[in-house]
Amino acid sequence: MPPPAGVLATVIAMEPTTTRIGLLGCGVVGGSLVGLLASRGPDIEARTGLRFALGPVAVRSLDKVRSAELEGARLTTDPLEVVDDPDVDVVVELMGGLEPAGTLVAKALAAGKPVVTANKALLAGSGAELFAIADAAGVDLLFEAAVAGGIPFIRPLRESLAGEHISRVMGIVNGTTNYILTKMTDDGAAYADALAEAQALGYAEADPTADVEGHDAAAKAAIIGSIAYGRRIVLDDVHVEGISAITQADIEQATKLGYVVKLLAIVESFGTDGIAARVHPTMVPSTHPLASVRDSFNAVFVEGAAVGDLMFYGRGAGGGPTASAVLGDLIDAAGNLRKGTHATITTSEPAPIVPIDELRSEYYLNLDLHDRPGALAAVAGIFGDRGVSIRAMEQVDAGADARVLFITHTAREADVRATLDDLREHPDVGNVNTVLRVLGG
Amino acid sequence: MPPPAGVLATVIAMEPTTTRIGLLGCGVVGGSLVGLLASRGPDIEARTGLRFALGPVAVRSLDKVRSAELEGARLTTDPLEVVDDPDVDVVVELMGGLEPAGTLVAKALAAGKPVVTANKALLAGSGAELFAIADAAGVDLLFEAAVAGGIPFIRPLRESLAGEHISRVMGIVNGTTNYILTKMTDDGAAYADALAEAQALGYAEADPTADVEGHDAAAKAAIIGSIAYGRRIVLDDVHVEGISAITQADIEQATKLGYVVKLLAIVESFGTDGIAARVHPTMVPSTHPLASVRDSFNAVFVEGAAVGDLMFYGRGAGGGPTASAVLGDLIDAAGNLRKGTHATITTSEPAPIVPIDELRSEYYLNLDLHDRPGALAAVAGIFGDRGVSIRAMEQVDAGADARVLFITHTAREADVRATLDDLREHPDVGNVNTVLRVLGG
Repeated sequence: MPPPAGVLATVIAMEPTTTRIGLLGCGVVGGSLVGLLASRGPDIEARTGLRFALGPVAVRSLDKVRSAELEGARLTTDPLEVVDDPDVDVVVELMGGLEPAGTLVAKALAAGKPVVTANKALLAGSGAELFAIADAAGVDLLFEAAVAGGIPFIRPLRESLAGEHISRVMGIVNGTTNYILTKMTDDGAAYADALAEAQALGYAEADPTADVEGHDAAAKAAIIGSIAYGRRIVLDDVHVEGISAITQADIEQATKLGYVVKLLAIVESFGTDGIAARVHPTMVPSTHPLASVRDSFNAVFVEGAAVGDLMFYGRGAGGGPTASAVLGDLIDAAGNLRKGTHATITTSEPAPIVPIDELRSEYYLNLDLHDRPGALAAVAGIFGDRGVSIRAMEQVDAGADARVLFITHTAREADVRATLDDLREHPDVGNVNTVLRVLGG
Repeated sequence: MPPPAGVLATVIAMEPTTTRIGLLGCGVVGGSLVGLLASRGPDIEARTGLRFALGPVAVRSLDKVRSAELEGARLTTDPLEVVDDPDVDVVVELMGGLEPAGTLVAKALAAGKPVVTANKALLAGSGAELFAIADAAGVDLLFEAAVAGGIPFIRPLRESLAGEHISRVMGIVNGTTNYILTKMTDDGAAYADALAEAQALGYAEADPTADVEGHDAAAKAAIIGSIAYGRRIVLDDVHVEGISAITQADIEQATKLGYVVKLLAIVESFGTDGIAARVHPTMVPSTHPLASVRDSFNAVFVEGAAVGDLMFYGRGAGGGPTASAVLGDLIDAAGNLRKGTHATITTSEPAPIVPIDELRSEYYLNLDLHDRPGALAAVAGIFGDRGVSIRAMEQVDAGADARVLFITHTAREADVRATLDDLREHPDVGNVNTVLRVLGG
């Protein structure tokens, strides 16, 4: 099957067009991006016919020392100079935060400029509005870097799996907490020590709240859910629990039982009943692919009706990985500009949200009981009264009190909560130490 | 940042267009695809504005009983009726094999019809020519299902990572061999028993040669390499070794040493020196993400300069996963048709190939030495004479002879081969049992 004569010669005969990038923010990711554009430019042009040029760069201060690649770039402290510049073809937003980023992105889109952003907070808060503006203007709003950093996951979810019925998406989407939990599991570190180590390595902020309390993961869950289900899911729709209450004892027990504790962002469909989105520490069976995602790596696990189980694994943060994702989006946006097309993302309809109380799961409970005859029977009775059935129970050494670990059969969250309320009030119960959801098949 | 009034209402106001699919071949994957189109059609239309209709279906025999979804479909035994039908908008090729699939695909593309195919043999053999025809005609030739089945990996590699410098891609891309190796590792099964089990489960053919000797993986390596590096790599460029010589003893030794044996398809760049492509059983450190890919699952591990390590994991075969990948491509092709655009894939320039002799790796060698004084010193001398340095050595019980396991430091393949030739001729060497490459950092 030889090709028609002369075909090969015409294939790469594309006129290179130059796409001028306006950059909003130039910290670690921006610096990496500028470096990548310089080093990879010739290869990108050879492979795609696209040539990029760096236009104006909005920075917070003109005094900071910049990398060599920024020599000759037009720096400004006024981001409107970037957005309003008629020579800017594509805007890359790397400022972060809600404002002024939101207003600037909306302005650029409305003016017909595609935008590439890594801003998860903005998308989780105002994604639907911004996608609508982009679509009305016929331009791209791309955001691969906003979730799971360098992992090319948003585009496959949005495009390759557009026809798939996705039953559930589960992500390890916060590298800081995954690093802390890995250190607690592998090195037996206490939570506070693992957090301090993460801070020393620059993985965790001085104020680690957004990471360890799950807020960062919740913003990503909202974005993942919106793309997976084509409906608007916002931060407030996501039930959030962090990892700051997890103790070394919990980790040890999980290991003994064949589980690894991971902070999971879970979005799942209940058909016409709606969609549930939540972030909480979860006991993951050690044979599950998510259990092997260690240190600061991220992964997103997708369960589809036809495709089965998929997992996307990689670096969730850092200058290089994030800039790589931004660059992939830039090539996409520039190619679409040249073709006069754009990606359509519709998430305008709010998703019906299934409240956490209605969800069903297995649960791990760690209780201290006063060591009295009949205490265990009384506690077991409370479970039974609330319709929560116990799958496994083990008593472990805990000094004066008896520490008892329970794993329930699948139960409704509301029933488990009611059980916990009853337990806390019972005279034989010293303390409810930990409650973790257990990932089932 | 409220959106301009009225924007939300306009977002989904797209006129649905109908894309008529001509299907070449309707076995397991084709049947799954027809089922998916029926069940997911309304949702796909709601999310993308695309409506699909099943046009003519070319089958081998009209007598076979078909599934309910094919009722009312126009079946024909003449595939040209599908390709030449002026009402067919997109052709899906699921016949497999080189001919007549190649001629039919070329004809459809030349006539301006996008083609979606799952045919790895065709792409590995004639991919560059077919991409050139597609590009000249301005239509898509998409093939997500041809490599790693349902895993959306080709599109991220081709699009999201278009700007990334990819140093190496390593794939577990053959489910049959991964199933066999997993059974040998987990259950201590002998190779022949594990193969028989794979055959009983339908994972392996009655003649398993294409799978166990690595030819199937080699075709996929050629495709992966072509997409990763934008150069033409064909089957003959790929060095191939299968798993049929792997024994239970090798697997046990690997486990003891902290490794898992996997059949890897590896494509890597040596800069201006060229590209190397190979398939061989490899000792993978048990902490490496590829080590946790078990049973018939597939995974592709990508090492990028900026993005770092990525892994894509999922089902490499089966009706549902493969049909899911075809459906993703169909949505892409139909969307591009509507927008009047297409994906450009240029792999016309042949890649300079680095021969296997030039590659460097650590090696695991399993030798039987005659138990004579000085035998070990003589053998160690042979390694040294060839410039191959020994990193670790262990003697294990093997009856009359002394079985000795070596792991070398990184050495050149040609030097290791010369060492093996010398060893085989040495009077103190009873047998060279196994040679495996060891995956290093």
